[in-house]
Amino acid sequence: MNIQVGRNKFAYQSYGFDDIALVPGMKTTDPVDTDISMNIGDFRFDIPILASAMDSTVDLNVIKEIHRLGGLAVMNMQGIQTKFENPEDALKKIRKAPVEESTRVIQELAAIPVKDELVVKRVREIKDAGCIACGSFTPKSADSLGLKAVEAGLDILVVQSTVTSLEHESSRFESLSLKSICEKAGVPVVIGNSVTYEVALEIMRAGATGILVGIGPGATCTTRGVLAVGAGQVTSTADSAAARDDYFKESGRYVQIITDGGIARGGDVVKAFASGADAVMIGTPFARANESPGQGYHWGMATGHPTLPRGTRIKVEKLGSLEELILGPALNRSDGSLNLTGALREAMGVLGCRNLKELQKANMVICPNFLTEGKTFQINQRVGMGK
Amino acid sequence: MNIQVGRNKFAYQSYGFDDIALVPGMKTTDPVDTDISMNIGDFRFDIPILASAMDSTVDLNVIKEIHRLGGLAVMNMQGIQTKFENPEDALKKIRKAPVEESTRVIQELAAIPVKDELVVKRVREIKDAGCIACGSFTPKSADSLGLKAVEAGLDILVVQSTVTSLEHESSRFESLSLKSICEKAGVPVVIGNSVTYEVALEIMRAGATGILVGIGPGATCTTRGVLAVGAGQVTSTADSAAARDDYFKESGRYVQIITDGGIARGGDVVKAFASGADAVMIGTPFARANESPGQGYHWGMATGHPTLPRGTRIKVEKLGSLEELILGPALNRSDGSLNLTGALREAMGVLGCRNLKELQKANMVICPNFLTEGKTFQINQRVGMGK
Amino acid sequence: MNIQVGRNKFAYQSYGFDDIALVPGMKTTDPVDTDISMNIGDFRFDIPILASAMDSTVDLNVIKEIHRLGGLAVMNMQGIQTKFENPEDALKKIRKAPVEESTRVIQELAAIPVKDELVVKRVREIKDAGCIACGSFTPKSADSLGLKAVEAGLDILVVQSTVTSLEHESSRFESLSLKSICEKAGVPVVIGNSVTYEVALEIMRAGATGILVGIGPGATCTTRGVLAVGAGQVTSTADSAAARDDYFKESGRYVQIITDGGIARGGDVVKAFASGADAVMIGTPFARANESPGQGYHWGMATGHPTLPRGTRIKVEKLGSLEELILGPALNRSDGSLNLTGALREAMGVLGCRNLKELQKANMVICPNFLTEGKTFQINQRVGMGK
Amino acid sequence: MNIQVGRNKFAYQSYGFDDIALVPGMKTTDPVDTDISMNIGDFRFDIPILASAMDSTVDLNVIKEIHRLGGLAVMNMQGIQTKFENPEDALKKIRKAPVEESTRVIQELAAIPVKDELVVKRVREIKDAGCIACGSFTPKSADSLGLKAVEAGLDILVVQSTVTSLEHESSRFESLSLKSICEKAGVPVVIGNSVTYEVALEIMRAGATGILVGIGPGATCTTRGVLAVGAGQVTSTADSAAARDDYFKESGRYVQIITDGGIARGGDVVKAFASGADAVMIGTPFARANESPGQGYHWGMATGHPTLPRGTRIKVEKLGSLEELILGPALNRSDGSLNLTGALREAMGVLGCRNLKELQKANMVICPNFLTEGKTFQINQRVGMGK
Repeated sequence: MNIQVGRNKFAYQSYGFDDIALVPGMKTTDPVDTDISMNIGDFRFDIPILASAMDSTVDLNVIKEIHRLGGLAVMNMQGIQTKFENPEDALKKIRKAPVEESTRVIQELAAIPVKDELVVKRVREIKDAGCIACGSFTPKSADSLGLKAVEAGLDILVVQSTVTSLEHESSRFESLSLKSICEKAGVPVVIGNSVTYEVALEIMRAGATGILVGIGPGATCTTRGVLAVGAGQVTSTADSAAARDDYFKESGRYVQIITDGGIARGGDVVKAFASGADAVMIGTPFARANESPGQGYHWGMATGHPTLPRGTRIKVEKLGSLEELILGPALNRSDGSLNLTGALREAMGVLGCRNLKELQKANMVICPNFLTEGKTFQINQRVGMGK
Repeated sequence: MNIQVGRNKFAYQSYGFDDIALVPGMKTTDPVDTDISMNIGDFRFDIPILASAMDSTVDLNVIKEIHRLGGLAVMNMQGIQTKFENPEDALKKIRKAPVEESTRVIQELAAIPVKDELVVKRVREIKDAGCIACGSFTPKSADSLGLKAVEAGLDILVVQSTVTSLEHESSRFESLSLKSICEKAGVPVVIGNSVTYEVALEIMRAGATGILVGIGPGATCTTRGVLAVGAGQVTSTADSAAARDDYFKESGRYVQIITDGGIARGGDVVKAFASGADAVMIGTPFARANESPGQGYHWGMATGHPTLPRGTRIKVEKLGSLEELILGPALNRSDGSLNLTGALREAMGVLGCRNLKELQKANMVICPNFLTEGKTFQINQRVGMGK
Repeated sequence: MNIQVGRNKFAYQSYGFDDIALVPGMKTTDPVDTDISMNIGDFRFDIPILASAMDSTVDLNVIKEIHRLGGLAVMNMQGIQTKFENPEDALKKIRKAPVEESTRVIQELAAIPVKDELVVKRVREIKDAGCIACGSFTPKSADSLGLKAVEAGLDILVVQSTVTSLEHESSRFESLSLKSICEKAGVPVVIGNSVTYEVALEIMRAGATGILVGIGPGATCTTRGVLAVGAGQVTSTADSAAARDDYFKESGRYVQIITDGGIARGGDVVKAFASGADAVMIGTPFARANESPGQGYHWGMATGHPTLPRGTRIKVEKLGSLEELILGPALNRSDGSLNLTGALREAMGVLGCRNLKELQKANMVICPNFLTEGKTFQINQRVGMGK
Repeated sequence: MNIQVGRNKFAYQSYGFDDIALVPGMKTTDPVDTDISMNIGDFRFDIPILASAMDSTVDLNVIKEIHRLGGLAVMNMQGIQTKFENPEDALKKIRKAPVEESTRVIQELAAIPVKDELVVKRVREIKDAGCIACGSFTPKSADSLGLKAVEAGLDILVVQSTVTSLEHESSRFESLSLKSICEKAGVPVVIGNSVTYEVALEIMRAGATGILVGIGPGATCTTRGVLAVGAGQVTSTADSAAARDDYFKESGRYVQIITDGGIARGGDVVKAFASGADAVMIGTPFARANESPGQGYHWGMATGHPTLPRGTRIKVEKLGSLEELILGPALNRSDGSLNLTGALREAMGVLGCRNLKELQKANMVICPNFLTEGKTFQINQRVGMGK
């Protein structure tokens, strides 16, 4: 809190991915020898990437394919997948809506209630396919619907809202106890989102297995403009990682820090780990996969808010298969949007890091991406005029 | 004054809305339980929003509708409404003027004198409609015409110019005493605009009930480019709020800080309060309402300066009704331009603030809006090339 | 030199006009009562504005009109005016050249030698018109041709090059002594350009009456990109003004600081004075006057360098007459490009400054022009996409 | 490491060319008297410019012409020149590929193995032409193929990869000893790329004659976006120069610092030396020469990575001959893209530097290029919309 913004008003600087770069040290490592595995509870994954619980990003097919590739896709358990036996019609309605109607169409679908039996059914389908079942619920529904899903076989419970706190004051609802959910669940619970040291520490003390870090940075999210709430992912991740390290000293338990939002390219994945993350959760890049339910469109959950939508449907380019996206090869795309684990391993190689713990300690410089070194063609690309 | 700009030249950094964001704390609050009421003198308003005294923004219909919605619209008492019995012809002339003629047309209309009897008539119309009557006068006219309006029933007197000071040196005119106006008025007096601690404190000591904070930030205003005068709204509001708090300790009287200008979206409203404001005054968003007299056009008062126009007529998109703008719902607009009080309450919810006093203490980070987290689509939108 | 750029490398921050704004203080002043006169030696001018010695900006007609309006136009005494009895043909050749040929055409004309008798003739024409005769020479020609012009009646001698120093090492030419020129001239000598305290101090000690401050900022100048040499006008002016004040203590002689380059609008004029200037020299705005020899085109002297052009011909919009530009009124232009003295007086009014000495002490804030307060329309205008 | 990015995370600021400018001092020098020669081992060159070892930039003709002009062109000894007896067909294939196919075509050609006999042949051709033979090899091939080239007559051995370190861990390959290569080579060895003091010092201790400084800044390079690895050229050069000076004190041997990448205009060349460089390596400007093998296209070596391309083929405008590019004159181009040594000498003149050692001590200011002094036309040019 050391920058004076006004007479009695102080702030701290919050850095995002585009503000920084990483610099190599005294040794390099063969990318082939790097270990990029992650753990959530007792579950071990070959690659440290989660697909965001968004209707445009994850369905059963995506879960199966990402499982095969070594990662984890999270199903939105209060979205289109659990409102419709056959979700394709609703997805098509969103995709086909003209630009100026898209938010309203998403709002109308958001107003339709979730069917509990479909939640159970989706969990069973995922288990039947031999995958680890992971689904996300809002804090309000975690206690009832979330635990019902656990009973049906859910392996990892994600409790997620734009901003999550331990203490929620309300005259209408009884306050949710994240601690009680963690105790009752009996499976790993991942909770988010938060951006500060203090909140991360409290969520850990409540028993979370992992924490989702990031408010507002996602490409479909307009929370920052609508609510003024947000922070940069580098600082948010570093602060949350500091809470993880302090909590580990305090309790002996290591909680996963999962940077969620704002990751568009391989370089952003690398920066998230260098900021202190144990895993990353990704939306937009997966919405750009050939297999995505969005099929060229991407939208967020907050887009469906009944009176205050804070997201937007965006058109995205299909880049390639999930396999190309995660494991490569990147053919014809040299901007870092494909082969995310290849980029991660290659970066670990030049930075001399054998595993993600070492990458968390890489040397960082402040060096904004924009307008560096006369790269006029980059500017053109960024403002959308490139060829 | 701690940044060295040259050998013997120092400056301080002045922050604007786009430089900052807010971060949640340890608790959250149900938006339904938030109190966003404001007071001006003994008048209490359900919502803390004033509509700017601009010809393109406020007429009798707008005043009635904003009154119904719980806010306050201020009539420009030295503009088109008080020069013409029927203002529609003049408004149409401005709207229909070709781009290159628009400033000249506004200048010509600005040269036409105000009719005192129309000032009295407008006040009575507002009172007859059951609304709180609030009108703005330049410092030069406040003593004569402004007090005449008070006699006619004006409830709140706004004394406003680009820059207001307590001490005005002139060889031509006798100096205006803001103190004497505050004493003679017998109704709450709101004075502006100013941007510093020192000037705010002096205006409070002169007896003001409220202070308008902001020089140059409005969308139709080119004061910064023409005169070099201006400051960021976050720092200006925080400094003025510090004066309010010090003056309250000194006098026991609490003066309202009203951030005026530069507010385009819900997030800006939230940031104004987090900077220390008690209320906000808004122009452009109201000019975009279906009911606005500008009907798709917006211009400022300084546009009419006889030899040095410092504003411009801009074309604005109609967004929806005043009700949608203020209370929502936002349908098909997810960028924060509709449902301003919804955004305010929602932000207070995630920031755990039950009232505006608590919001004034929210945690702030420096984190520029522009070019954060790979949001290419935002850049496109901002430079006007988005789809 | 307090910013560490690398291990053993330090730099200081240099601020330009777009980095700052000015904030009002405790009093305001009636613009009518402001004194904006300037002195160069014993010559007194009603307005503190010089027109740059550029072929596209100044000819005899412009000199006469700016004299009438109270300012001073400087003739380039080694340009088209002194190479051709009738310069109009050469000007037309430059104006008519296709974009890709324009630099070459300017280079060809630059290679033509100056005619001494035309220098004498131009000086006499200016004197015969009843104006103060002021002309610029390169350091190399100042000793011969410059003194010849003084003999012919030149009132103020300007010695100007991209970068001027007291000590010039050369194996080809004998070093120019600025001190000896100042002594021999017998008229006020204005010398430039420089940007630092140390060089300004030495030029003053050599006997200069005025110093031109600014390297690289002009709109037609590409010195910064070609040579890497440049600095921000706010810091350069403030540092040079500090040299002026120190030299005044040392010698009792007050040297004029003339900020030269980078001034596009009224706000920039105001900022130059607030940075410490006693006068401003302006190119582009005058090239945009109806009367300019460039007639819609503008180019710099360095554009004519035989092997390394450091300028470019730019197309400019005609804005109005010299009178509208300097004294106003600004009709149909509200961006600060017209009525420069009106803007200066109005700004002095709101800043409470009765004269330029007081304006030199105005309060400054760091507050970048670009991307402030959601002014999307400004961005559009700046990147050239506005309507 | 003094900027706090998060709780336990620190970084330092890394500056690039666009962040800085240079300011003149107390004396100026005649450009004609400046000495811009450089040495690599016992080889002396009239001009301190190397052409990058890229397929689009250097072939035998370019080597001959740059040798004639006084510089040094480096051949990529593991590219198209050493895979094909007649490289023109492959070059044509790359140039003719449609935009969306270009990366794949470059990848396919990259997969073709180098022919050792062609390496030997190219070295002999260069020697037969009377030029100094300089070729680049990856660290992996330097020990075998590189030494074979030295046997064939190679005068200067360049060992280059995106990131080079002294210690490379690999389970697949035995670690390369840069020290042993430097000992065995018997000719000057230039090693890169690196960006930090520590790595530069170790490479010097291994026996390098020169060090290539720069990771990620080149125009065809997307390493920064794909891998997050990179740094600004001003800070990287200054830090490496500090290592050179410390190593000189330690050993008495002076190692050349060669800034490689990100240099687009004359001003960038000047800034590289002012940051501490002894020479510059340039890609894009040479790819824009009439004689370049790329013939209007430019691409980097990392573009050919089999699964993770980190470069892109860009279309570049042909600017003029290599002679115009290096020695000038610049006709019709005033943006600093032609006559690079003319710009260097002219800048040394205004900065009063007789040789490159003096230029290394020039005064630097932080003063971002972008958006300075109202240069709207520059913005337009940079975002590609200029006329």
